[in-house]
Amino acid sequence: MATHGRRAAGAALLREQVTGKITAAVLDELADTGYARMSMEAVARRAGVGKAALYRRWASKEAMVQQIVGEFAWASVPVPDTGSLREDVRGYVAHACALRQDLRAVRVIADLSAEAVRDPRLARSFYPALREPRRTAAAAMLRNAVERGELPADLDTDLALDCLVGLAYGRPQTLTASGELADPYPHDRLVEVVLAALTACR
Amino acid sequence: MATHGRRAAGAALLREQVTGKITAAVLDELADTGYARMSMEAVARRAGVGKAALYRRWASKEAMVQQIVGEFAWASVPVPDTGSLREDVRGYVAHACALRQDLRAVRVIADLSAEAVRDPRLARSFYPALREPRRTAAAAMLRNAVERGELPADLDTDLALDCLVGLAYGRPQTLTASGELADPYPHDRLVEVVLAALTACR
Repeated sequence: MATHGRRAAGAALLREQVTGKITAAVLDELADTGYARMSMEAVARRAGVGKAALYRRWASKEAMVQQIVGEFAWASVPVPDTGSLREDVRGYVAHACALRQDLRAVRVIADLSAEAVRDPRLARSFYPALREPRRTAAAAMLRNAVERGELPADLDTDLALDCLVGLAYGRPQTLTASGELADPYPHDRLVEVVLAALTACR
Repeated sequence: MATHGRRAAGAALLREQVTGKITAAVLDELADTGYARMSMEAVARRAGVGKAALYRRWASKEAMVQQIVGEFAWASVPVPDTGSLREDVRGYVAHACALRQDLRAVRVIADLSAEAVRDPRLARSFYPALREPRRTAAAAMLRNAVERGELPADLDTDLALDCLVGLAYGRPQTLTASGELADPYPHDRLVEVVLAALTACR
């Protein structure tokens, strides 16, 4: 029994390590090649596993990407809850600016967005995975601010969420000559703009 | 001479018609297939011309896309100059919301943005073509408002331009079940949010 338990634990650990390798390979392939041209073969090769290891876990490329990107999005969501809207927004903006410097994440998001807008079926598959985590966290942040009286009681939450996303993530991305994303002004200024915009969302 | 003149005018007209067909074919191919997988053959086939007609005009796929998308972006830029910032912003937002309903344009922009963020060389080729027209027009709109005293004299123009783009274009795109882009709130509310945000850009 003890041997069997150790063996089972070892198998679970191995399976977890393989899943980790596959996750990294999927994100790297999405960033380098893009969803449309990405093949299960290429993912398996990059992860150093057989194709069977992929198909044991997911029925299709779409299911694989949906789950991996969804988990990635959940893991990378900040839930600022400092007791002050200004500080929460500061944390939200700082996280967005850091994400804009993560070229792999930026590439994956841009690629899946382009595919989603090309194919409504993929939109229904990817948008919830990509967006719901952040949107849910941000909605809680706004609700707390309304309860504290920092935002109007009649706040239009849909509009406010779109403004948060548009201002923090939707700014144009400008690549510097060295291929990094440029941020031409201090984040503190952007925080004040976000606060002014949110207050007007009614 | 008269015959020669008519013949030259006819040739110029024909050339223009062919260019128009190629332009439509490039935009359709970009929307359907995407830049990475788009071939000169597919564009020629869709336009009903020979490949030579493309290579007479452009040395490469990149040069072709850069010019066509740049001209398209210039042609579709609104230059609101109503004498009132609120009315100008209303026109800017209305145009952005209309563009969000133009699925071909949305697909082309999303596709080229994804390619640009994947390849810094393409970013240097596409970003100016895609962005400069709108940015130049919007900068004039903001300058006029500063001169009329509707925006602070110390306006941070870079920040204000990013806010305009982020709020009007950078909002998340949500596809309805029928594949259209949903706009869940009245544009007038967004106009007030944009005005509040711009006023805070200092």
